[in-house]
Amino acid sequence: MASAPVLARAWARPSAHFLRPLSRTLASSRPISQGAQAAVANDASTQGPSFKFEDLNPHLVAAEYAVRGLLPQRAAQIAQELQQGATNYPFDEVIFANIGNPQALAQPPITFFRQVLSLMENENMLLDMANFPHVAALYPADVIARAKDYIRAGADIGAYSASQGVPLVREQVAGYLERRDGVPADPSDIFLTAGASEGISNLLGAIIANPSVGIMIPIPQYPLYSATITLCNGKPVKYYLDEEAGWTLNADELKRQLDEARAAGTDVRALCVINPGNPTGQVLTEDVMREVVQFCRRERLVLLADEVYQANTYQDHLPFHSFKKVVASMPDCRDTVELASFHSLSKGMIGECGRRGGFMELINFDPLVREQLLKRASINLCCNVAGQVMTGMMCEPPAVGEPSYDLYHHEMESLYTSLRRRALILADAFNDMDGIECGQPQGAMYLFPRIYLSDKAIAAAQERKLAPDTFYCLQLLERTGFCVVPGSGFDQYPGTFHFRCTFLPQEEKIASLVHSIQEFQRDWVEEYGLPSMA
Amino acid sequence: MASAPVLARAWARPSAHFLRPLSRTLASSRPISQGAQAAVANDASTQGPSFKFEDLNPHLVAAEYAVRGLLPQRAAQIAQELQQGATNYPFDEVIFANIGNPQALAQPPITFFRQVLSLMENENMLLDMANFPHVAALYPADVIARAKDYIRAGADIGAYSASQGVPLVREQVAGYLERRDGVPADPSDIFLTAGASEGISNLLGAIIANPSVGIMIPIPQYPLYSATITLCNGKPVKYYLDEEAGWTLNADELKRQLDEARAAGTDVRALCVINPGNPTGQVLTEDVMREVVQFCRRERLVLLADEVYQANTYQDHLPFHSFKKVVASMPDCRDTVELASFHSLSKGMIGECGRRGGFMELINFDPLVREQLLKRASINLCCNVAGQVMTGMMCEPPAVGEPSYDLYHHEMESLYTSLRRRALILADAFNDMDGIECGQPQGAMYLFPRIYLSDKAIAAAQERKLAPDTFYCLQLLERTGFCVVPGSGFDQYPGTFHFRCTFLPQEEKIASLVHSIQEFQRDWVEEYGLPSMA
Repeated sequence: MASAPVLARAWARPSAHFLRPLSRTLASSRPISQGAQAAVANDASTQGPSFKFEDLNPHLVAAEYAVRGLLPQRAAQIAQELQQGATNYPFDEVIFANIGNPQALAQPPITFFRQVLSLMENENMLLDMANFPHVAALYPADVIARAKDYIRAGADIGAYSASQGVPLVREQVAGYLERRDGVPADPSDIFLTAGASEGISNLLGAIIANPSVGIMIPIPQYPLYSATITLCNGKPVKYYLDEEAGWTLNADELKRQLDEARAAGTDVRALCVINPGNPTGQVLTEDVMREVVQFCRRERLVLLADEVYQANTYQDHLPFHSFKKVVASMPDCRDTVELASFHSLSKGMIGECGRRGGFMELINFDPLVREQLLKRASINLCCNVAGQVMTGMMCEPPAVGEPSYDLYHHEMESLYTSLRRRALILADAFNDMDGIECGQPQGAMYLFPRIYLSDKAIAAAQERKLAPDTFYCLQLLERTGFCVVPGSGFDQYPGTFHFRCTFLPQEEKIASLVHSIQEFQRDWVEEYGLPSMA
Repeated sequence: MASAPVLARAWARPSAHFLRPLSRTLASSRPISQGAQAAVANDASTQGPSFKFEDLNPHLVAAEYAVRGLLPQRAAQIAQELQQGATNYPFDEVIFANIGNPQALAQPPITFFRQVLSLMENENMLLDMANFPHVAALYPADVIARAKDYIRAGADIGAYSASQGVPLVREQVAGYLERRDGVPADPSDIFLTAGASEGISNLLGAIIANPSVGIMIPIPQYPLYSATITLCNGKPVKYYLDEEAGWTLNADELKRQLDEARAAGTDVRALCVINPGNPTGQVLTEDVMREVVQFCRRERLVLLADEVYQANTYQDHLPFHSFKKVVASMPDCRDTVELASFHSLSKGMIGECGRRGGFMELINFDPLVREQLLKRASINLCCNVAGQVMTGMMCEPPAVGEPSYDLYHHEMESLYTSLRRRALILADAFNDMDGIECGQPQGAMYLFPRIYLSDKAIAAAQERKLAPDTFYCLQLLERTGFCVVPGSGFDQYPGTFHFRCTFLPQEEKIASLVHSIQEFQRDWVEEYGLPSMA
């Protein structure tokens, strides 16, 4: 059979000098536009774009996602200017503490996970080891065995998997959950997802059947929730976390907000809880969790438990408890309360955010509902299989006695202790500053300090058409290079102001960071004062 | 700082024997339920699930996605039975031709792409080559250089990237588009996406502002379109491809359907074209494409061009033309017609479906609209970075003269010629069978043969409450192990019946596959006859 001329094929590459895209040499004008304007005169072009901002889905326009909003955009701009040699900033580096993205701040990945995927990517080496004698020198025996296990089980990173996820991985997840909770877990209840976000979006999209459906969310909250509810045209039903009591939640507040929403005609169907909290970092006690579960049972609400920070707890008296375990311990709830729990590769000590791996476990769901959720997953085919495989490894890491165990354990332990140290140092520093109050870090990757802003500061913000905490955070960024997210991006109790910062900056940078924030805060208080009651 | 007891940590693994999940040893009953039933008697449990099928978002319930529907589910069941030793089928293997998933059918990946990612996964080897002398023996120099390029450019596969995608990758995509089309491409117009699906869903979700918005889609169509439009509560406005003319489309049909929809009050805002077609495989000529573009200009429609099969064309007289190039060649359209073009890692010769990589290029879009699409992407943070990096390699593969070029070119060329051979053999075989008509394969990975079903066959299907082509495909599966998707899953002109099959089964299996389909078809025609007019 004759083949078509080589140059006509999309993959043909005539020569190396062709590698440079035209765009780097041409003026960076809009594509296919130069010189054409004059030649064109017709109805269409004079009417402007056929699809304008006003035509957009209003729910998309209304959705907000501050974690990637104004602050990080300005920070990226400054970082670029610094890279190009700018000297007009009183710092030489932007520290991105706006987002829990550990590996972007030089946190090293877990070696075992990466070695297994490295072998699976280059499967030839693995399947033909006789011809690649160096492989055994580069990869420990349990890495080689694990990669072979996944391949043998049909986890092919280049192929679509089952939409619910690779069966072996779902078994590994179930095994982890059983060890964690001491109660059975069924692989068929587990859906592998692209991070936790995908599972949360798909489930909320299934629950929000019409615009009167309400979803209870904590305030402050991770803005994925408000954004998704807005996108789905549902109603967020806010309940406030109790800052005075370390950001815990209580059933009275839940009940008050629920009743109010129902009285106003909202059909409240689900309650979202983030534990450990984001942005607030609190870790719930079992007592509180039992109250929450009882509340869901009484009020017939689906419980969405965002538990992506389950490995990130920092106080010995406040360990993580899963909602699954708590539900299982309550005889009047364990067969009835519908629980969806979410976990992710992006957090913990693993911090593989770019991987987009995670899972959702569904407990007590109507099988017909579950079937529709599987169909939803199938419309996007599957989530990326390398992320699925790593999710399996998160749940079934090297065991004691296996060649990779010591290194694995050392890596996890040192990442954990370093995270905890950084959390405590930063919290202590904030607590020492005038006009900032932080409490003790309990969990997650964040501090959510309260900032006390004077009327003068609030007026100065209003003058600039900024929320007061946005103004504060922008000033902090411009003067220290420290990029955080204003509390208004997460919503907060009216009249209070906060910011969220991760404690992920590298340990060796913390001391000078603290120093420059202290200076900033002193200057700020000198310029704007403090509110009289603070 | 004291560390918490090791066993309390989520990553602690007491010993290897703990590896076995409880679920493998316990009865596989629903979790946390056994024995509890009797102990429970309260209002909640007697009311059944609080969230039932009837409570679901009706748009989710209404969405259909046949590519992963009844046929593949039954096929998976049979495959499992065969694996467990079943001998009651007249075949010993299920051949999954229902989905374009090449690597699941043993198509090998492209070595260069995998080697680069293998090194990036195991970055230690790369960054410390003095300590890993074997690396240079295992990886060609250009692989090592490429991996370093990506890392140097900040493409960190473990970290969230910019929501629009890694800048270097977007430059590589732009370079590819410029070489392909001969017109400038701007990296800021490019969004990296999880496969093509994510870009298509997000854009349709932005356009469908309310239930009166209509989106024109081809019939037959890839069901992502109908499913997404249904999920977003928009109106599909169907236009029929012309089977007699090799599944091309024509402007008269577009105009007729548009006018009818508008007369019925539908606010038609966009036209979707799949070229090369899915499931129909047609490759559009430039003349037809110009008509389509003029139609969009006149009618002020956004043009969504699904071009994921751009490397899959099999007739020398029908090469692929991009809509971007066609739009750019039309002075009255090139600055006005809003074009979104989609591409993917999953198709072509690369076939990395499990990777979930792809891109969308936006031309002539209102910058304010583009900004909202970027916000939409940011709510899910970013798509997986390994997929982004491979998208960069797809667009900038090894160049002539580089160490990996010859192997790369050989792999692409032999995959291509093999695909083409398989397409022609299967099409010839179908065309030779009584009651099947197929035409010549033009592009994509599919044949979409028409099957002529007698009244007797249709009645037999109705008896079983199945669509006639679903009945046919189920019978084909049960008797040959060949899993295809009925035309009704893609929609088709009323009264016609088809199925879609990929031509991805391994070449050495094609002859016996053809033989068993021939036998099946002979038996089928003997049992049900052919319609009188066929």
